[in-house]
Amino acid sequence: MADTELPTRPKPEETPASAAPAEGDSKNASKNALKKAAKEKAKAEKAAARAAQEKAQAAAAEANDTAKDLYGPIPETEEVIPTTRFSELSEEYHEKEVTVVARVDNARVQSAKLAFLMLRQQGQKVQAVIAAAEPISRQMIKYTGGLNVNSIVQITGIVKKPEIPISSATISHLELHIRKVYMISEAAQMLPMQVKDAERPPPTEAEEGQVDAEGAPIVTLKTRLDNRVLDLQTETSQAITWISSGVAELFAEYMIKSGSRWIFTPKLVGAATEGGSNVFEVKYFKRNAYLAQSPQLYKQMCIAGDMENVFEIAPVFRAEDSNTHRHLTEFAGLDFEKTFHHHYHEVLDFAEDLLVFILTQLKERYAAQIATIQKSYPKAGDFKLPKDGKALRLNYMDGVALLKEAGVDMSEQERFENDFSTAMEKQLGHIIREKYDTDFYVLDKFPMAVRPFYTKADPKDSRFSNSYDFFMRGEEIMSGAQRINDIKELEESMRTKGLDPTQEGFEDYLNAFRQGCPPHAGGGLGMNRIVMFFLGLPNVRLASLFPRDPQRLRP
Amino acid sequence: MADTELPTRPKPEETPASAAPAEGDSKNASKNALKKAAKEKAKAEKAAARAAQEKAQAAAAEANDTAKDLYGPIPETEEVIPTTRFSELSEEYHEKEVTVVARVDNARVQSAKLAFLMLRQQGQKVQAVIAAAEPISRQMIKYTGGLNVNSIVQITGIVKKPEIPISSATISHLELHIRKVYMISEAAQMLPMQVKDAERPPPTEAEEGQVDAEGAPIVTLKTRLDNRVLDLQTETSQAITWISSGVAELFAEYMIKSGSRWIFTPKLVGAATEGGSNVFEVKYFKRNAYLAQSPQLYKQMCIAGDMENVFEIAPVFRAEDSNTHRHLTEFAGLDFEKTFHHHYHEVLDFAEDLLVFILTQLKERYAAQIATIQKSYPKAGDFKLPKDGKALRLNYMDGVALLKEAGVDMSEQERFENDFSTAMEKQLGHIIREKYDTDFYVLDKFPMAVRPFYTKADPKDSRFSNSYDFFMRGEEIMSGAQRINDIKELEESMRTKGLDPTQEGFEDYLNAFRQGCPPHAGGGLGMNRIVMFFLGLPNVRLASLFPRDPQRLRP
Repeated sequence: MADTELPTRPKPEETPASAAPAEGDSKNASKNALKKAAKEKAKAEKAAARAAQEKAQAAAAEANDTAKDLYGPIPETEEVIPTTRFSELSEEYHEKEVTVVARVDNARVQSAKLAFLMLRQQGQKVQAVIAAAEPISRQMIKYTGGLNVNSIVQITGIVKKPEIPISSATISHLELHIRKVYMISEAAQMLPMQVKDAERPPPTEAEEGQVDAEGAPIVTLKTRLDNRVLDLQTETSQAITWISSGVAELFAEYMIKSGSRWIFTPKLVGAATEGGSNVFEVKYFKRNAYLAQSPQLYKQMCIAGDMENVFEIAPVFRAEDSNTHRHLTEFAGLDFEKTFHHHYHEVLDFAEDLLVFILTQLKERYAAQIATIQKSYPKAGDFKLPKDGKALRLNYMDGVALLKEAGVDMSEQERFENDFSTAMEKQLGHIIREKYDTDFYVLDKFPMAVRPFYTKADPKDSRFSNSYDFFMRGEEIMSGAQRINDIKELEESMRTKGLDPTQEGFEDYLNAFRQGCPPHAGGGLGMNRIVMFFLGLPNVRLASLFPRDPQRLRP
Repeated sequence: MADTELPTRPKPEETPASAAPAEGDSKNASKNALKKAAKEKAKAEKAAARAAQEKAQAAAAEANDTAKDLYGPIPETEEVIPTTRFSELSEEYHEKEVTVVARVDNARVQSAKLAFLMLRQQGQKVQAVIAAAEPISRQMIKYTGGLNVNSIVQITGIVKKPEIPISSATISHLELHIRKVYMISEAAQMLPMQVKDAERPPPTEAEEGQVDAEGAPIVTLKTRLDNRVLDLQTETSQAITWISSGVAELFAEYMIKSGSRWIFTPKLVGAATEGGSNVFEVKYFKRNAYLAQSPQLYKQMCIAGDMENVFEIAPVFRAEDSNTHRHLTEFAGLDFEKTFHHHYHEVLDFAEDLLVFILTQLKERYAAQIATIQKSYPKAGDFKLPKDGKALRLNYMDGVALLKEAGVDMSEQERFENDFSTAMEKQLGHIIREKYDTDFYVLDKFPMAVRPFYTKADPKDSRFSNSYDFFMRGEEIMSGAQRINDIKELEESMRTKGLDPTQEGFEDYLNAFRQGCPPHAGGGLGMNRIVMFFLGLPNVRLASLFPRDPQRLRP
């Protein structure tokens, strides 16, 4: 945790030689006080005297301060002052007065007569300048240049064109000439990390603890996540959180348009029916409950309840002790389940169109955010979508064949009893990108042996199943299938998988099928993984607001 | 649990006197077998012989059956048969052939030559008739009239106008004359309750265990919830689940339109910071975690993270041992948080418009569902919205005065240290409905003493706070406030409320304010309560798909 307390980098010339005399006196008094090893009482008296003196001096300085009403704590007023957003600023504002509310990203006193601020609004940066000229006083310049980094201020100023573009600002061709500076929320002088140090991607293992070319520390992912509120303020984090929002929005939009009903199934469940050891246990009054590992059984029960087409957007909990770049113990699940009439491919077609819609619309609606993120994470490159707007669908065995062509051969047993390893999946992703020019594709007809008990076997070849996985850049983002809707077949499948249909907790689920249930299929998407792989982020934690893993429960 | 095993009501004339001779023989054989008290082995042999005989007879019957391809298990086919929804059926279909997929709500053999089905599709009912006429055989009529209730069938038939409208059907002016009946999913012969018995509101305490005027059992709420999948199949449940879906959809729609970002905050949290004893404890690997009681602290941290305008739709967990008609241990929370520039009423205006939008649009988009629900729950009457499209906003003290006028006086101490009791809230709801003709209203400026530590005091009178509650039919559906954004004020408020700011678990939250945080306000809505009070349902469990309370963890 040592690196969570990085000091704020010292600001140059915080008290320039030409500072107001009253302040200089106060500083000497302070120095003298520190030299003495006086008793507590004497110290307190001295301090009180000093405080009184400072107050008197400050009052005197204020009396002489021509700008005293133009800076400091924000004045109480009933007047509604219109504010301008950075995103609105354009050449049209040249020479106009605007009021903005923004954070201080950096403050620098150049001289007694000149100070600079870098202002930040949702990660976007604009430079502001303050120069001594009636009525701006030296005191006001000192105040402005000495603002604590990350404080939120309200600034009124004139929009000007700088002589040379300000390369460190997002809006480099405009700057603000300050007329008023008021404090809205003051940040502490010491921050555990600087937002600008978190603007870059987290370091690789080799880079940890190093400084970059400009001497700034390379902030580790751990430090960033420990201080996630600061980390969220970066332009990149702002953009990533917009993409997450967009994925959820587009999923809901498509589902609602299709006539699907939004459902809310319980996360507190009475039995650990779905996966045994990977489930979190909850104290529920005088007994135990468990956190649902997916809404699978419940969304099927909604289908048995004649709801026909349902979706859910809700947290999913996995008590897996997996400490990898792509596992979380809590993530946002996007689930759907749908009846079909003739063939489960009706639902698979629907799901493919859903993903093509989400990925296409992300590119369209969030182009600016994607461009921002690519500045920090350029490696993965643009996400390639199928050119014809239709998802590429292959069978599992086609994948096996493509890998074999590339020299990766699976034995007969492996083909039917194993699934691809993560490495094989990634390699297949590369092969498919090369051959079909797409980063999104679907594999259908997985071996029955690797799918859960509720999966429908392929009626033409029982070694396979009517199940599919969706991939982005060679990594799985969705798993789905036709589900067994016949009670006898379901109980048989449970027994084949070593589950006991009479076990407590299955009763309600199985009754749903005993009472008649239409044929249906569905799937479950991991929202955070979609964001991660779409953007090519190196870690799923970057695609979670406040990530949870076996080691992390805070912030 | 005795009432969960209600037998299916007997069907009249399941085997009419004029049944096919082969079947009659089989029945006699069966009778004889029952008379004998034979040994197990002899019995088994007999049974095997009988089965063989039955099979032979059935084969013989089938050979003679002119309709044998027109009914029974659904044939496998590649042919895509277009199906018609009940909701599409209209006069235009008269004399046309349609294929429908529906549940058997009731099956009745009138005679060897005539049987009736009541079909059900998402709660909507249509009658189907089958009569002996080439090629329909007696066997097919017997099969159709003997279908197990709740089975899902595919029926092809001709749409006809019945001589007298079928009052028990939803679509009473049309019926289907059956040509084909295929089984898609067969329900068990015994159901724990009949869907049609769950169509009516659950009984009052006095009615429990009684039968209604027609001799049908009045199904208790417990039985209905124990068998929720069947219960969801009623027309009323179908409509209620659409209203729930609609509330979530309209909330998201309004928030997205306002430029709000969809957030997903963690439900697994490291400390029970928000409310002490009312929190569920989770085993989290080798330590404890807790289930978030609201996203309050996290949505504020998102605001501190410069996200400005955020919303969340997610489960909320409350470990309260409250066994009332309006408490759940898990419910769907609709939360938002927003910065403002000058006054928290900017956010309050926004929230009021949000609710007016949701309630107005529910009435517009879900008129049919509301009408359906009112047939079962007419008592509460139409939900009254303010005529001018603006929410009625009163101050807490206006509420106190209105109650006083009506003879309910609170002492000076009660006014500032208590909140209204539930009974007072309901009475105030009646008074306001009488006086202002609205079921939706807002109370602002609650006493500081009754609000949580993060609530901003009214700067003009510290006995009050910048906080508000929203009410529907006199019951609270939302609580919200301006939040303290100054760290010193926040720590002071915590101490006043008896909380220790240095307590483990508050660190990350408080750091968010130490690092600068803009002024903000927000609120949290209970989705299930909105649905309950909008529709005037007697119990919140009816507005939850699979409700959770201290006694209920299943289904």
